[in-house]
Amino acid sequence: MINVVKIGGNVIDNPDELQKFVQNFSSLSGNKILVHGGGKEATKLSKSMGLEPRMINGRRVTDADTLNIVIMIYAGLINKRIVSMLQSCGCNAIGLSGADGNLLTTVRRPPEPIDYGFVGDVTDGNCVNSALLNDLVNAGYTPVICAITHDGNGQLLNTNADTVASAIATGLVQTQKVTLTMCFELNGVLADVNDAESLINEISIDKVDILKSEGIISGGMIPKIDNAVNAVKRGVAEVSIVNHKNIGAGKCKGTIIR
Amino acid sequence: MINVVKIGGNVIDNPDELQKFVQNFSSLSGNKILVHGGGKEATKLSKSMGLEPRMINGRRVTDADTLNIVIMIYAGLINKRIVSMLQSCGCNAIGLSGADGNLLTTVRRPPEPIDYGFVGDVTDGNCVNSALLNDLVNAGYTPVICAITHDGNGQLLNTNADTVASAIATGLVQTQKVTLTMCFELNGVLADVNDAESLINEISIDKVDILKSEGIISGGMIPKIDNAVNAVKRGVAEVSIVNHKNIGAGKCKGTIIR
Repeated sequence: MINVVKIGGNVIDNPDELQKFVQNFSSLSGNKILVHGGGKEATKLSKSMGLEPRMINGRRVTDADTLNIVIMIYAGLINKRIVSMLQSCGCNAIGLSGADGNLLTTVRRPPEPIDYGFVGDVTDGNCVNSALLNDLVNAGYTPVICAITHDGNGQLLNTNADTVASAIATGLVQTQKVTLTMCFELNGVLADVNDAESLINEISIDKVDILKSEGIISGGMIPKIDNAVNAVKRGVAEVSIVNHKNIGAGKCKGTIIR
Repeated sequence: MINVVKIGGNVIDNPDELQKFVQNFSSLSGNKILVHGGGKEATKLSKSMGLEPRMINGRRVTDADTLNIVIMIYAGLINKRIVSMLQSCGCNAIGLSGADGNLLTTVRRPPEPIDYGFVGDVTDGNCVNSALLNDLVNAGYTPVICAITHDGNGQLLNTNADTVASAIATGLVQTQKVTLTMCFELNGVLADVNDAESLINEISIDKVDILKSEGIISGGMIPKIDNAVNAVKRGVAEVSIVNHKNIGAGKCKGTIIR
Protein backbone atom coordinates (compact mmCIF):
# COMPACT_ATOMS: atom_id res chain seq x y z
CA MET A 1 0.00 0.00 0.00
CA ILE A 2 1.39 3.37 -1.02
CA ASN A 3 0.00 6.90 -1.19
CA VAL A 4 1.08 9.23 -4.01
CA VAL A 5 0.47 12.84 -2.94
CA LYS A 6 0.59 15.72 -5.42
CA ILE A 7 0.96 19.41 -4.53
CA GLY A 8 0.93 22.44 -6.80
CA GLY A 9 1.82 26.10 -6.84
CA ASN A 10 -0.67 27.16 -4.19
CA VAL A 11 1.39 25.28 -1.58
CA ILE A 12 4.81 25.80 -3.11
CA ASP A 13 4.49 29.57 -3.48
CA ASN A 14 3.68 30.12 0.18
CA PRO A 15 6.60 29.39 2.57
CA ASP A 16 4.37 29.08 5.64
CA GLU A 17 1.89 26.79 3.89
CA LEU A 18 4.76 24.71 2.52
CA GLN A 19 6.32 24.34 5.97
CA LYS A 20 2.99 23.21 7.45
CA PHE A 21 2.35 20.87 4.55
CA VAL A 22 5.81 19.31 4.83
CA GLN A 23 5.29 18.67 8.55
CA ASN A 24 1.88 17.10 7.96
CA PHE A 25 3.10 15.07 5.00
CA SER A 26 6.11 13.78 6.93
CA SER A 27 3.78 12.65 9.74
CA LEU A 28 1.69 10.49 7.38
CA SER A 29 2.15 6.86 8.31
CA GLY A 30 2.85 4.24 5.67
CA ASN A 31 4.69 4.41 2.38
CA LYS A 32 4.36 7.63 0.45
CA ILE A 33 5.61 9.54 -2.56
CA LEU A 34 5.36 13.28 -3.13
CA VAL A 35 4.93 14.77 -6.62
CA HIS A 36 5.21 18.52 -6.97
CA GLY A 37 4.54 20.99 -9.71
CA GLY A 38 6.06 24.41 -10.07
CA GLY A 39 4.79 27.75 -8.99
CA LYS A 40 5.33 31.40 -9.55
CA GLU A 41 9.09 31.23 -9.11
CA ALA A 42 9.64 30.09 -12.70
CA THR A 43 7.72 33.12 -13.99
CA LYS A 44 9.56 35.36 -11.53
CA LEU A 45 12.94 34.04 -12.68
CA SER A 46 11.96 34.41 -16.33
CA LYS A 47 11.00 38.03 -15.78
CA SER A 48 14.16 38.83 -13.82
CA MET A 49 16.11 37.48 -16.81
CA GLY A 50 14.09 39.62 -19.18
CA LEU A 51 12.28 36.70 -20.81
CA GLU A 52 8.64 37.18 -21.72
CA PRO A 53 6.52 34.04 -21.22
CA ARG A 54 4.97 33.01 -24.54
CA MET A 55 1.43 31.72 -24.20
CA ILE A 56 -0.88 29.97 -26.68
CA ASN A 57 -4.52 29.54 -25.62
CA GLY A 58 -3.53 30.41 -22.07
CA ARG A 59 -0.84 27.74 -21.93
CA ARG A 60 2.83 28.45 -21.55
CA VAL A 61 5.11 27.51 -24.44
CA THR A 62 8.26 25.78 -23.21
CA ASP A 63 10.96 27.11 -25.53
CA ALA A 64 14.63 26.25 -24.87
CA ASP A 65 15.17 29.14 -22.41
CA THR A 66 11.93 28.36 -20.57
CA LEU A 67 12.88 24.69 -20.37
CA ASN A 68 16.16 25.62 -18.68
CA ILE A 69 14.26 27.80 -16.23
CA VAL A 70 11.73 25.14 -15.26
CA ILE A 71 14.53 22.58 -14.87
CA MET A 72 16.36 25.00 -12.57
CA ILE A 73 13.27 25.87 -10.54
CA TYR A 74 11.40 22.55 -10.42
CA ALA A 75 14.28 20.01 -10.34
CA GLY A 76 16.67 22.38 -8.57
CA LEU A 77 15.28 24.98 -6.21
CA ILE A 78 11.83 23.61 -5.32
CA ASN A 79 12.78 19.93 -5.29
CA LYS A 80 15.84 20.39 -3.08
CA ARG A 81 14.02 22.85 -0.82
CA ILE A 82 11.25 20.32 -0.18
CA VAL A 83 13.76 17.47 0.26
CA SER A 84 15.84 19.39 2.80
CA MET A 85 12.68 20.48 4.67
CA LEU A 86 11.46 16.88 4.82
CA GLN A 87 14.91 15.75 5.99
CA SER A 88 14.69 18.24 8.86
CA CYS A 89 11.36 16.58 9.85
CA GLY A 90 13.01 13.17 9.99
CA CYS A 91 11.55 12.04 6.65
CA ASN A 92 14.30 10.52 4.50
CA ALA A 93 13.28 12.22 1.27
CA ILE A 94 15.06 11.67 -2.05
CA GLY A 95 14.44 14.07 -4.90
CA LEU A 96 14.05 12.75 -8.43
CA SER A 97 13.18 13.98 -11.89
CA GLY A 98 11.88 11.67 -14.58
CA ALA A 99 15.40 11.40 -16.00
CA ASP A 100 16.87 10.13 -12.73
CA GLY A 101 17.11 6.36 -12.83
CA ASN A 102 14.98 6.56 -15.98
CA LEU A 103 12.05 7.10 -13.62
CA LEU A 104 9.55 8.53 -16.10
CA THR A 105 10.01 8.52 -19.86
CA THR A 106 7.71 10.67 -21.97
CA VAL A 107 7.53 11.70 -25.62
CA ARG A 108 7.74 15.27 -26.81
CA ARG A 109 4.29 16.55 -27.72
CA PRO A 110 3.92 16.70 -31.54
CA PRO A 111 4.42 20.23 -32.91
CA GLU A 112 1.13 20.01 -34.86
CA PRO A 113 -1.40 21.59 -34.56
CA ILE A 114 0.22 23.74 -31.83
CA ASP A 115 3.90 23.62 -30.92
CA TYR A 116 4.10 23.88 -27.14
CA GLY A 117 7.83 23.33 -27.28
CA PHE A 118 9.69 20.99 -24.93
CA VAL A 119 6.63 19.43 -23.31
CA GLY A 120 6.46 15.73 -22.48
CA ASP A 121 3.36 13.55 -22.78
CA VAL A 122 2.90 10.18 -21.11
CA THR A 123 2.09 7.60 -23.75
CA ASP A 124 1.66 4.18 -22.18
CA GLY A 125 1.66 2.22 -18.95
CA ASN A 126 5.27 1.14 -19.16
CA CYS A 127 6.96 4.52 -18.88
CA VAL A 128 7.58 4.38 -15.10
CA ASN A 129 10.57 2.67 -13.47
CA SER A 130 8.44 1.24 -10.66
CA ALA A 131 11.30 -1.01 -9.53
CA LEU A 132 13.33 2.05 -8.55
CA LEU A 133 10.44 3.51 -6.57
CA ASN A 134 9.70 0.20 -4.84
CA ASP A 135 13.37 -0.29 -3.97
CA LEU A 136 13.66 3.21 -2.52
CA VAL A 137 10.39 3.02 -0.58
CA ASN A 138 11.22 -0.44 0.78
CA ALA A 139 14.59 0.91 1.94
CA GLY A 140 12.82 3.66 3.90
CA TYR A 141 13.12 6.58 1.50
CA THR A 142 10.33 8.93 0.45
CA PRO A 143 10.68 9.87 -3.24
CA VAL A 144 9.97 13.53 -4.03
CA ILE A 145 9.33 13.80 -7.76
CA CYS A 146 9.33 16.97 -9.83
CA ALA A 147 7.44 17.37 -13.10
CA ILE A 148 10.50 17.26 -15.34
CA THR A 149 10.78 14.11 -17.47
CA HIS A 150 13.03 12.95 -20.31
CA ASP A 151 12.62 11.20 -23.65
CA GLY A 152 15.50 8.75 -23.10
CA ASN A 153 17.47 10.38 -25.92
CA GLY A 154 18.97 13.19 -23.88
CA GLN A 155 16.06 15.63 -24.04
CA LEU A 156 14.51 16.86 -20.81
CA LEU A 157 10.81 17.75 -21.05
CA ASN A 158 8.44 19.93 -19.04
CA THR A 159 5.45 17.81 -18.02
CA ASN A 160 2.12 18.52 -16.34
CA ALA A 161 2.44 17.65 -12.64
CA ASP A 162 -1.05 16.09 -12.40
CA THR A 163 -0.07 13.85 -15.32
CA VAL A 164 3.19 12.90 -13.60
CA ALA A 165 1.39 12.06 -10.33
CA SER A 166 -1.16 9.95 -12.19
CA ALA A 167 1.53 8.15 -14.20
CA ILE A 168 3.56 7.40 -11.07
CA ALA A 169 0.48 6.10 -9.23
CA THR A 170 -0.69 3.89 -12.11
CA GLY A 171 2.88 2.67 -12.63
CA LEU A 172 2.83 1.16 -9.14
CA VAL A 173 -0.53 -0.65 -9.18
CA GLN A 174 0.82 -4.00 -10.35
CA THR A 175 2.66 -4.65 -7.09
CA GLN A 176 0.50 -2.99 -4.43
CA LYS A 177 -2.61 -1.03 -3.54
CA VAL A 178 -2.09 2.59 -4.58
CA THR A 179 -3.98 5.71 -3.54
CA LEU A 180 -3.52 9.09 -5.20
CA THR A 181 -4.08 12.33 -3.27
CA MET A 182 -4.39 15.47 -5.37
CA CYS A 183 -4.02 18.57 -3.20
CA PHE A 184 -5.54 21.89 -4.14
CA GLU A 185 -6.92 25.00 -2.44
CA LEU A 186 -10.51 23.86 -1.78
CA ASN A 187 -11.79 21.11 0.48
CA GLY A 188 -12.79 18.93 -2.48
CA VAL A 189 -15.56 18.86 -5.06
CA LEU A 190 -18.38 21.10 -3.86
CA ALA A 191 -22.03 20.57 -4.85
CA ASP A 192 -22.29 24.36 -4.69
CA VAL A 193 -19.02 26.11 -5.49
CA ASN A 194 -20.09 29.07 -3.32
CA ASP A 195 -20.73 26.86 -0.28
CA ALA A 196 -17.57 25.43 1.32
CA GLU A 197 -19.78 23.12 3.41
CA SER A 198 -21.31 21.41 0.37
CA LEU A 199 -18.45 18.93 0.02
CA ILE A 200 -19.21 15.77 -1.93
CA ASN A 201 -17.49 13.02 0.05
CA GLU A 202 -17.39 10.40 -2.64
CA ILE A 203 -17.89 10.17 -6.38
CA SER A 204 -18.16 6.90 -8.24
CA ILE A 205 -16.43 7.14 -11.60
CA ASP A 206 -19.64 6.07 -13.37
CA LYS A 207 -21.42 9.15 -11.94
CA VAL A 208 -18.88 11.65 -13.28
CA ASP A 209 -20.71 12.30 -16.56
CA ILE A 210 -23.93 13.09 -14.72
CA LEU A 211 -22.14 15.54 -12.41
CA LYS A 212 -20.54 17.18 -15.43
CA SER A 213 -23.92 17.53 -17.18
CA GLU A 214 -25.36 19.07 -13.99
CA GLY A 215 -22.51 21.60 -13.94
CA ILE A 216 -21.28 20.41 -10.53
CA ILE A 217 -18.00 19.32 -12.11
CA SER A 218 -17.03 22.29 -14.26
CA GLY A 219 -14.19 24.62 -15.22
CA GLY A 220 -10.80 23.80 -13.76
CA MET A 221 -12.24 20.81 -11.91
CA ILE A 222 -12.88 18.92 -15.17
CA PRO A 223 -9.25 18.03 -16.00
CA LYS A 224 -8.63 17.10 -12.34
CA ILE A 225 -11.60 14.73 -12.30
CA ASP A 226 -10.77 13.31 -15.74
CA ASN A 227 -7.25 12.62 -14.50
CA ALA A 228 -8.68 10.94 -11.39
CA VAL A 229 -11.09 8.81 -13.42
CA ASN A 230 -8.27 7.68 -15.69
CA ALA A 231 -6.14 6.74 -12.68
CA VAL A 232 -9.00 4.68 -11.18
CA LYS A 233 -9.63 2.98 -14.53
CA ARG A 234 -5.94 2.09 -14.64
CA GLY A 235 -6.05 0.43 -11.24
CA VAL A 236 -5.51 3.12 -8.62
CA ALA A 237 -7.73 2.15 -5.67
CA GLU A 238 -8.95 5.66 -4.96
CA VAL A 239 -8.14 9.25 -5.80
CA SER A 240 -8.71 11.98 -3.22
CA ILE A 241 -9.13 15.61 -4.20
CA VAL A 242 -8.35 17.43 -1.00
CA ASN A 243 -7.28 20.71 0.54
CA HIS A 244 -3.51 20.63 1.13
CA LYS A 245 -4.21 21.96 4.65
CA ASN A 246 -6.07 18.72 5.37
CA ILE A 247 -3.17 16.37 4.69
CA GLY A 248 -2.55 14.45 7.90
CA ALA A 249 -4.26 11.97 10.17
CA GLY A 250 -7.87 12.52 11.19
CA LYS A 251 -8.53 15.46 8.90
CA CYS A 252 -11.16 15.99 6.21
CA LYS A 253 -10.42 13.56 3.40
CA GLY A 254 -11.90 15.75 0.66
CA THR A 255 -13.67 14.09 -2.25
CA ILE A 256 -12.79 10.48 -2.89
CA ILE A 257 -13.17 9.23 -6.45
CA ARG A 258 -13.29 5.49 -7.00
CA MET B 1 35.58 -1.89 -6.43
CA ILE B 2 34.17 1.49 -7.40
CA ASN B 3 35.57 4.54 -9.16
CA VAL B 4 34.49 8.03 -8.06
CA VAL B 5 35.12 10.50 -10.91
CA LYS B 6 35.00 14.25 -10.38
CA ILE B 7 34.62 16.88 -13.12
CA GLY B 8 34.67 20.65 -12.86
CA GLY B 9 33.77 23.74 -14.81
CA ASN B 10 36.26 23.19 -17.62
CA VAL B 11 34.21 20.21 -18.81
CA ILE B 12 30.78 21.46 -17.80
CA ASP B 13 31.11 24.84 -19.53
CA ASN B 14 31.93 23.31 -22.91
CA PRO B 15 28.99 21.41 -24.50
CA ASP B 16 31.23 19.48 -26.93
CA GLU B 17 33.69 18.50 -24.21
CA LEU B 18 30.83 17.50 -21.93
CA GLN B 19 29.26 15.32 -24.63
CA LYS B 20 32.60 13.57 -25.27
CA PHE B 21 33.23 13.16 -21.56
CA VAL B 22 29.76 11.70 -20.96
CA GLN B 23 30.29 9.16 -23.74
CA ASN B 24 33.70 8.17 -22.38
CA PHE B 25 32.47 8.05 -18.80
CA SER B 26 29.47 5.91 -19.72
CA SER B 27 31.80 3.44 -21.46
CA LEU B 28 33.89 2.91 -18.31
CA SER B 29 33.44 -0.64 -17.13
CA GLY B 30 32.74 -1.40 -13.49
CA ASN B 31 30.88 0.52 -10.82
CA LYS B 32 31.22 4.27 -10.94
CA ILE B 33 29.97 7.50 -9.44
CA LEU B 34 30.21 10.97 -10.99
CA VAL B 35 30.65 14.09 -8.87
CA HIS B 36 30.37 17.44 -10.60
CA GLY B 37 31.04 21.01 -9.64
CA GLY B 38 29.55 24.07 -11.18
CA GLY B 39 30.80 26.29 -13.90
CA LYS B 40 30.29 29.67 -15.39
CA GLU B 41 26.51 29.28 -15.70
CA ALA B 42 25.97 30.28 -12.06
CA THR B 43 27.90 33.51 -12.62
CA LYS B 44 26.05 34.07 -15.88
CA LEU B 45 22.67 33.59 -14.23
CA SER B 46 23.65 35.87 -11.34
CA LYS B 47 24.61 38.61 -13.77
CA SER B 48 21.45 38.23 -15.85
CA MET B 49 19.49 38.72 -12.62
CA GLY B 50 21.52 41.80 -11.78
CA LEU B 51 23.34 40.21 -8.83
CA GLU B 52 26.98 41.11 -8.32
CA PRO B 53 29.10 38.20 -7.04
CA ARG B 54 30.63 39.13 -3.70
CA MET B 55 34.19 37.86 -3.29
CA ILE B 56 36.51 37.72 -0.27
CA ASN B 57 40.16 36.78 -0.91
CA GLY B 58 39.15 35.59 -4.38
CA ARG B 59 36.46 33.29 -3.03
CA ARG B 60 32.78 33.69 -3.75
CA VAL B 61 30.51 34.46 -0.81
CA THR B 62 27.35 32.35 -0.89
CA ASP B 63 24.64 34.71 0.35
CA ALA B 64 20.98 33.66 0.25
CA ASP B 65 20.45 34.75 -3.38
CA THR B 66 23.67 33.09 -4.51
CA LEU B 67 22.73 29.88 -2.70
CA ASN B 68 19.45 29.76 -4.61
CA ILE B 69 21.34 30.27 -7.85
CA VAL B 70 23.88 27.51 -7.22
CA ILE B 71 21.06 25.15 -6.17
CA MET B 72 19.24 25.94 -9.41
CA ILE B 73 22.32 25.56 -11.59
CA TYR B 74 24.19 22.70 -9.89
CA ALA B 75 21.32 20.53 -8.58
CA GLY B 76 18.93 21.56 -11.36
CA LEU B 77 20.31 22.47 -14.74
CA ILE B 78 23.75 20.82 -14.74
CA ASN B 79 22.81 17.72 -12.78
CA LYS B 80 19.74 16.92 -14.89
CA ARG B 81 21.56 17.76 -18.12
CA ILE B 82 24.33 15.28 -17.28
CA VAL B 83 21.83 12.65 -16.11
CA SER B 84 19.75 12.89 -19.30
CA MET B 85 22.91 12.78 -21.45
CA LEU B 86 24.12 9.66 -19.63
CA GLN B 87 20.67 8.09 -20.00
CA SER B 88 20.90 8.63 -23.76
CA CYS B 89 24.22 6.71 -23.69
CA GLY B 90 22.56 3.76 -21.94
CA CYS B 91 24.03 4.62 -18.54
CA ASN B 92 21.27 4.50 -15.90
CA ALA B 93 22.30 7.69 -14.10
CA ILE B 94 20.51 9.02 -11.04
CA GLY B 95 21.15 12.59 -9.92
CA LEU B 96 21.53 13.39 -6.25
CA SER B 97 22.40 16.31 -4.02
CA GLY B 98 23.70 15.81 -0.50
CA ALA B 99 20.17 16.36 0.84
CA ASP B 100 18.71 13.51 -1.22
CA GLY B 101 18.47 10.41 0.90
CA ASN B 102 20.59 12.28 3.46
CA LEU B 103 23.53 11.45 1.17
CA LEU B 104 26.04 14.00 2.48
CA THR B 105 25.57 16.03 5.65
CA THR B 106 27.87 18.98 6.26
CA VAL B 107 28.05 21.81 8.76
CA ARG B 108 27.86 25.45 7.85
CA ARG B 109 31.31 27.04 7.92
CA PRO B 110 31.69 29.22 11.04
CA PRO B 111 31.21 32.94 10.27
CA GLU B 112 34.52 33.78 12.00
CA PRO B 113 37.05 34.96 10.90
CA ILE B 114 35.41 35.27 7.46
CA ASP B 115 31.73 34.70 6.76
CA TYR B 116 31.52 32.88 3.44
CA GLY B 117 27.77 32.50 3.87
CA PHE B 118 25.92 29.26 3.16
CA VAL B 119 28.98 27.06 2.65
CA GLY B 120 29.14 23.50 3.94
CA ASP B 121 32.22 21.82 5.40
CA VAL B 122 32.68 18.08 5.81
CA THR B 123 33.48 17.33 9.42
CA ASP B 124 33.90 13.61 9.98
CA GLY B 125 33.87 10.23 8.30
CA ASN B 126 30.24 9.45 9.08
CA CYS B 127 28.61 12.13 6.99
CA VAL B 128 28.00 9.95 3.89
CA ASN B 129 25.01 7.64 3.46
CA SER B 130 27.13 4.92 1.86
CA ALA B 131 24.27 2.41 2.13
CA LEU B 132 22.23 4.46 -0.35
CA LEU B 133 25.13 4.62 -2.81
CA ASN B 134 25.87 0.90 -2.47
CA ASP B 135 22.20 0.00 -2.94
CA LEU B 136 21.91 2.16 -6.05
CA VAL B 137 25.17 0.95 -7.57
CA ASN B 138 24.34 -2.69 -6.84
CA ALA B 139 20.98 -2.18 -8.55
CA GLY B 140 22.76 -0.94 -11.69
CA TYR B 141 22.45 2.82 -11.26
CA THR B 142 25.23 5.37 -11.64
CA PRO B 143 24.90 8.16 -9.05
CA VAL B 144 25.60 11.66 -10.36
CA ILE B 145 26.25 13.91 -7.38
CA CYS B 146 26.26 17.71 -7.36
CA ALA B 147 28.15 19.80 -4.83
CA ILE B 148 25.08 20.93 -2.87
CA THR B 149 24.81 19.44 0.62
CA HIS B 150 22.56 19.99 3.64
CA ASP B 151 22.96 20.34 7.38
CA GLY B 152 20.09 17.99 8.25
CA ASN B 153 18.13 20.88 9.73
CA GLY B 154 16.62 22.15 6.50
CA GLN B 155 19.52 24.27 5.32
CA LEU B 156 21.09 23.56 1.92
CA LEU B 157 24.78 24.43 1.65
CA ASN B 158 27.15 25.18 -1.23
CA THR B 159 30.14 22.84 -0.94
CA ASN B 160 33.47 22.51 -2.73
CA ALA B 161 33.14 19.77 -5.36
CA ASP B 162 36.63 18.34 -4.71
CA THR B 163 35.66 18.03 -1.04
CA VAL B 164 32.39 16.31 -1.98
CA ALA B 165 34.20 13.84 -4.26
CA SER B 166 36.75 13.07 -1.56
CA ALA B 167 34.06 12.63 1.11
CA ILE B 168 32.01 10.31 -1.13
CA ALA B 169 35.09 8.22 -1.96
CA THR B 170 36.26 7.91 1.64
CA GLY B 171 32.69 7.19 2.75
CA LEU B 172 32.72 4.02 0.64
CA VAL B 173 36.08 2.51 1.64
CA GLN B 174 34.74 0.32 4.44
CA THR B 175 32.89 -1.97 2.04
CA GLN B 176 35.07 -2.03 -1.07
CA LYS B 177 38.19 -0.87 -2.89
CA VAL B 178 37.67 2.75 -3.97
CA THR B 179 39.57 4.81 -6.53
CA LEU B 180 39.11 8.55 -6.97
CA THR B 181 39.67 10.23 -10.35
CA MET B 182 39.96 14.00 -10.27
CA CYS B 183 39.61 15.44 -13.78
CA PHE B 184 41.12 18.72 -14.80
CA GLU B 185 42.52 20.44 -17.89
CA LEU B 186 46.11 19.12 -17.83
CA ASN B 187 47.39 15.59 -18.25
CA GLY B 188 48.38 15.35 -14.59
CA VAL B 189 51.16 16.69 -12.36
CA LEU B 190 53.97 17.93 -14.58
CA ALA B 191 57.61 18.02 -13.45
CA ASP B 192 57.90 21.14 -15.63
CA VAL B 193 54.63 23.02 -15.91
CA ASN B 194 55.70 24.35 -19.33
CA ASP B 195 56.34 20.86 -20.69
CA ALA B 196 53.19 18.79 -21.28
CA GLU B 197 55.39 15.72 -21.79
CA SER B 198 56.91 15.92 -18.30
CA LEU B 199 54.04 14.01 -16.68
CA ILE B 200 54.80 12.40 -13.32
CA ASN B 201 53.08 9.02 -13.51
CA GLU B 202 52.99 8.28 -9.83
CA ILE B 203 53.48 10.10 -6.56
CA SER B 204 53.75 8.36 -3.21
CA ILE B 205 52.02 10.38 -0.52
CA ASP B 206 55.21 10.43 1.55
CA LYS B 207 57.01 12.27 -1.30
CA VAL B 208 54.47 15.09 -1.55
CA ASP B 209 56.28 17.40 0.88
CA ILE B 210 59.52 17.07 -1.11
CA LEU B 211 57.73 17.88 -4.38
CA LYS B 212 56.15 20.89 -2.72
CA SER B 213 59.51 22.13 -1.44
CA GLU B 214 60.96 21.70 -4.95
CA GLY B 215 58.10 23.79 -6.35
CA ILE B 216 56.89 20.95 -8.60
CA ILE B 217 53.61 20.91 -6.69
CA SER B 218 52.64 24.55 -6.49
CA GLY B 219 49.81 27.02 -6.94
CA GLY B 220 46.40 25.56 -7.73
CA MET B 221 47.83 22.03 -7.67
CA ILE B 222 48.48 22.21 -3.90
CA PRO B 223 44.83 21.92 -2.74
CA LYS B 224 44.22 19.17 -5.31
CA ILE B 225 47.17 17.14 -4.05
CA ASP B 226 46.35 17.81 -0.40
CA ASN B 227 42.83 16.57 -1.07
CA ALA B 228 44.27 13.47 -2.77
CA VAL B 229 46.67 12.77 0.09
CA ASN B 230 43.84 13.05 2.61
CA ALA B 231 41.72 10.64 0.59
CA VAL B 232 44.57 8.09 0.44
CA LYS B 233 45.21 8.47 4.18
CA ARG B 234 41.51 7.78 4.77
CA GLY B 235 41.62 4.55 2.80
CA VAL B 236 41.09 5.38 -0.86
CA ALA B 237 43.31 2.96 -2.82
CA GLU B 238 44.54 5.54 -5.32
CA VAL B 239 43.72 9.01 -6.55
CA SER B 240 44.29 9.91 -10.20
CA ILE B 241 44.72 13.49 -11.34
CA VAL B 242 43.94 13.29 -15.02
CA ASN B 243 42.86 15.23 -18.09
CA HIS B 244 39.10 14.84 -18.56
CA LYS B 245 39.81 14.04 -22.22
CA ASN B 246 41.65 10.93 -21.08
CA ILE B 247 38.75 9.32 -19.23
CA GLY B 248 38.13 5.96 -20.88
CA ALA B 249 39.83 2.65 -21.47
CA GLY B 250 43.44 2.58 -22.60
CA LYS B 251 44.10 6.29 -22.26
CA CYS B 252 46.75 8.19 -20.30
CA LYS B 253 46.00 7.65 -16.62
CA GLY B 254 47.49 10.98 -15.49
CA THR B 255 49.26 11.16 -12.15
CA ILE B 256 48.38 8.48 -9.65
CA ILE B 257 48.76 9.35 -5.98
CA ARG B 258 48.88 6.50 -3.49
